[in-house]
Amino acid sequence: MREVAIVGVGMTKFGEEWNRGFRDLILEAGSKALEDAHLEGKEIDAIYCGTMAPGPLIGQEHAAALVADWMGLNPVPSVRVEAACASGGVALRQGYLAVASGLYDCVAVGGVEKMTDVPGPDVISTLGGAGDEEWELSFGATFPSIYALMARRHMIEYKTTEEQMAAVAVKNHKHGAKNKYAQFQKEITLQTVLSSKVVASPLKVFDCSPVTDGAAVVILMPLEKAKKFCEQPIQIVASAQASDTLALHDRKSLSEIYATKVAAKKAFEQAKLSPKDIDVAEVHDCFTIAEIMAIEDIGFFKKGEGGKATEDGLTALGGQIPINTSGGLKACGHPVGATGIKQAIEIVWQLRGEANSRQVKDAKVGLTHNVGGSGATCVIHILKNPSGD
Amino acid sequence: MREVAIVGVGMTKFGEEWNRGFRDLILEAGSKALEDAHLEGKEIDAIYCGTMAPGPLIGQEHAAALVADWMGLNPVPSVRVEAACASGGVALRQGYLAVASGLYDCVAVGGVEKMTDVPGPDVISTLGGAGDEEWELSFGATFPSIYALMARRHMIEYKTTEEQMAAVAVKNHKHGAKNKYAQFQKEITLQTVLSSKVVASPLKVFDCSPVTDGAAVVILMPLEKAKKFCEQPIQIVASAQASDTLALHDRKSLSEIYATKVAAKKAFEQAKLSPKDIDVAEVHDCFTIAEIMAIEDIGFFKKGEGGKATEDGLTALGGQIPINTSGGLKACGHPVGATGIKQAIEIVWQLRGEANSRQVKDAKVGLTHNVGGSGATCVIHILKNPSGD
Repeated sequence: MREVAIVGVGMTKFGEEWNRGFRDLILEAGSKALEDAHLEGKEIDAIYCGTMAPGPLIGQEHAAALVADWMGLNPVPSVRVEAACASGGVALRQGYLAVASGLYDCVAVGGVEKMTDVPGPDVISTLGGAGDEEWELSFGATFPSIYALMARRHMIEYKTTEEQMAAVAVKNHKHGAKNKYAQFQKEITLQTVLSSKVVASPLKVFDCSPVTDGAAVVILMPLEKAKKFCEQPIQIVASAQASDTLALHDRKSLSEIYATKVAAKKAFEQAKLSPKDIDVAEVHDCFTIAEIMAIEDIGFFKKGEGGKATEDGLTALGGQIPINTSGGLKACGHPVGATGIKQAIEIVWQLRGEANSRQVKDAKVGLTHNVGGSGATCVIHILKNPSGD
Repeated sequence: MREVAIVGVGMTKFGEEWNRGFRDLILEAGSKALEDAHLEGKEIDAIYCGTMAPGPLIGQEHAAALVADWMGLNPVPSVRVEAACASGGVALRQGYLAVASGLYDCVAVGGVEKMTDVPGPDVISTLGGAGDEEWELSFGATFPSIYALMARRHMIEYKTTEEQMAAVAVKNHKHGAKNKYAQFQKEITLQTVLSSKVVASPLKVFDCSPVTDGAAVVILMPLEKAKKFCEQPIQIVASAQASDTLALHDRKSLSEIYATKVAAKKAFEQAKLSPKDIDVAEVHDCFTIAEIMAIEDIGFFKKGEGGKATEDGLTALGGQIPINTSGGLKACGHPVGATGIKQAIEIVWQLRGEANSRQVKDAKVGLTHNVGGSGATCVIHILKNPSGD
């Protein structure tokens, strides 16, 4: 298969975009990505679009066809991919495969979700569909409570503390304050997190990612072609995906995401790299405990040491391995289908040296980690700036 | 890219399966496909699953992860693909690409929809999400009315008659009566169709496909590998997809499906074949007028002559080009996500010579045509029994 590179990126500001709909969001992100790639729409051979629940949220299925239509790109093939909160990451993997295979030379991969026009309870039940509807949601297990079970188990097994989880939120808000695309651009204190309202003990409001509108698009090409006209193509050196049971109660362990471990192993094998080669990573912090599990399961830290590493500042900007420089899902926001693509965009900016005040010095290799539901899907990509070779 | 073959097929009976859920349906179809391929689950490298609206219909998103889970296939990567009524066909195309690229050696592609547990008005509004929610559904344009506009225009431009449309229903029910998997296994008369209740003039109840539960699965492998252990691998010699505007009012013509014309042209180019080389075809007859447009837009008949060809029996078993030997969406039923896969299974059975009393004599090459919404997505596959070479 061919080597693949990202040649253009674009995203909307994430947040509560009450004046703009699904169509406006994807159009803005897509147009910015084309502009960034110095391409015109007619050069796009195919579209992949990750979006979790446009049916329940805006009454619109067939969302990829809508994207092709709204971007004026008919009759290009346009494919919607859904894997709950990993929809963007899985779409990126499908786009990667389409280019790597030789089928297409220029593919746009988008992620989008319009969530804030719907009443809260409807959003909660829609998101609950990312877990096991028959065995979890129908008994009242919404996502904060599912991650709370994992958090509690992690606390029991590894002495992880609520303060350590809160430290994830404090760090990601600090990063988000440096990102003009973030939903929350304001620093918070440990005390703010710890004294915030309990959602599902031990998780409090500030341990949870928000409900968000937003869209993000990347444009892919074969690396060889990209090198000819793009100043800094960013190569996708690994793309890996794994699945696990939908329901938490069927898993061997509640304190790890098994699909993350499988996908990470595959990704590092494909890239011929190890966790210590990664300079910067965007991981799936839908809840603070999720980031702690992610940095352990990917292999950045030993199992059980993620909480302490965060508390010690090892995952902050300037630390050993900066995690979620965008602000993560926690502060940048979590428009579900867009998150996986936003992660890739943040890494592209980091590897191009365009991350402004949140730039990781000399970042050459980055990783994205996108999880669906409570871990039934995980997809990991490793990106590299090949100019460093 | 590598050549790809279908080595196993399995489906449930289509119909109102009130005693069985989404999980039961996909499990039955998947198990049958594995058995047909003489494979065990552990040999599956990846899953693609086409399903349109499990969120609104059964409260479950993340449906591909559920399929991997329920089939006991974790941690294989599992990807849900959605393109409204073309979800199955688009999933087949993604699975084809995954094998053709060299990424995987054995891929299961499923389609499934569980529709009959939901009240009628909710099904109608959910299916309406396959069109343009903002410009069609929200003004009351449900699918029968959208296809009625196309039917009326076809009648004006080509003198197509209500009797000719009814002839599609009569033929497909006759075919369905020979198919034990069909929802309706009963022949009907022209008079039954013509005197049935008007849904959206000129379309009557018997011009419309039904609401259905069902699942269908095919298993793909590289052709070279398939030949070694499979008696009759059926090769996918073309896979093509195209898009068009979501809303009908943005199209140049209402009497054709432009995406069908684009996808057909690409498919015939890839296969180095022409419409006259096709021995049997499954086309998307969500409404009777849709079959008439399909057989014209694919190129089996000249534009405007599809109605007469049907009336003259050219598309019936024993005719010039038998269309929808399974009974089509009309009589076999239309569990939305499963339809595109069922079409491929019917063609596999025909090309293997296993279609029993509806067998098309000496069928060597077949075609499937799957449409999303009113034509914003179209995907076409051409299948061939390579043993005839």
